[in-house]
Amino acid sequence: MRLPELRVMGVDPGLTRCGLGAVEGRPGAPLRLVKVGVVRTPADDGIGARLVAIETGIERWLDEVEPDAVAVERVFAQHNLRTVMGTAQASAVAILCAARRGLPVALHTPSEVKAAITGSGTADKQQVGTMVTRLLRLDAMPKPADAADALALAICHVWRGGAQSRLAEAAAEAAARAKDGPGTTAAAYFRGRGRAAGYSRGTTK
Amino acid sequence: MRLPELRVMGVDPGLTRCGLGAVEGRPGAPLRLVKVGVVRTPADDGIGARLVAIETGIERWLDEVEPDAVAVERVFAQHNLRTVMGTAQASAVAILCAARRGLPVALHTPSEVKAAITGSGTADKQQVGTMVTRLLRLDAMPKPADAADALALAICHVWRGGAQSRLAEAAAEAAARAKDGPGTTAAAYFRGRGRAAGYSRGTTK
Repeated sequence: MRLPELRVMGVDPGLTRCGLGAVEGRPGAPLRLVKVGVVRTPADDGIGARLVAIETGIERWLDEVEPDAVAVERVFAQHNLRTVMGTAQASAVAILCAARRGLPVALHTPSEVKAAITGSGTADKQQVGTMVTRLLRLDAMPKPADAADALALAICHVWRGGAQSRLAEAAAEAAARAKDGPGTTAAAYFRGRGRAAGYSRGTTK
Repeated sequence: MRLPELRVMGVDPGLTRCGLGAVEGRPGAPLRLVKVGVVRTPADDGIGARLVAIETGIERWLDEVEPDAVAVERVFAQHNLRTVMGTAQASAVAILCAARRGLPVALHTPSEVKAAITGSGTADKQQVGTMVTRLLRLDAMPKPADAADALALAICHVWRGGAQSRLAEAAAEAAARAKDGPGTTAAAYFRGRGRAAGYSRGTTK
């Protein structure tokens, strides 16, 4: 079963730096980088001006990238009390911009994203950035980390978004994992199909 | 010194019920109710649809009410962990809608609002509702509590918003307070000028 390609825009929400990254692909095929960057707002601006700047930035991206879906990091109240309100507010703007256009919005937790990309839900930023760089066959790691995290979210969504409609493939993957020992999502991806589909460059970098 | 009238729209943010209330007035004169109500969104809708519904509701209100300023409750991460993310997201939409129109946005904490309206930063919802009903000379307390809270925010802002530009009056008030014993903002308001300006109906209700 060959799934259609999905163009996903990931958003790592934040007031000071809102990471944005778009990728294109489908489970089991090489991913392509569409665009990566960050919207910054000055810390000494009022919250209103900052949210408007983030909205303007995201709207421009949506116009240009024309994604099929938007993946936003799910924010938890118990983490990072100092910045969580700004993060929640920036995420609201991203969700609003996408939903207003009728785009599907998915929320993924940081550990879901890390697990999908690195195989470990507790991977650090460096590991996530390294895997993003490999999976997209980039020459250098996207900077800042927020930009790399946004790409990781988009990649996670391409993989997870396809999961619902590939039960048959999942069964085959589970069988392969059982044969090869415990593996990670990304590892299974490389092992099972990625290498054959052109990912060897990434894995040997 | 006679300050210009201010029309303020208050927002008590929430995903399930977003309280909205607009009042008109200035410090030292009777306040008028402009409009009060609530935007509701179904709990089983997706977060995207809910934020869009809140945006649509607030935009309609801003078109109709044409406020000079918008006052939004300041959300704290450490309160109500279960609902704080939704509250933060709804507040972001309110702030965004106002700022997009170039309206000044003020954030007031719940205790600032309670203290301004009832004299106690720890007043309960019933007390706040009672004072809102009195100050606006309403026949009944606005329901639900979120609607009354939105009016309280707007009233707080009319009073606090004028505070910066009435240093002379503040000095006079402080003198009056010192003479009459410790008083509250609302009590001082009634005592000092409210009664003479037509607030006796409210205070004797």
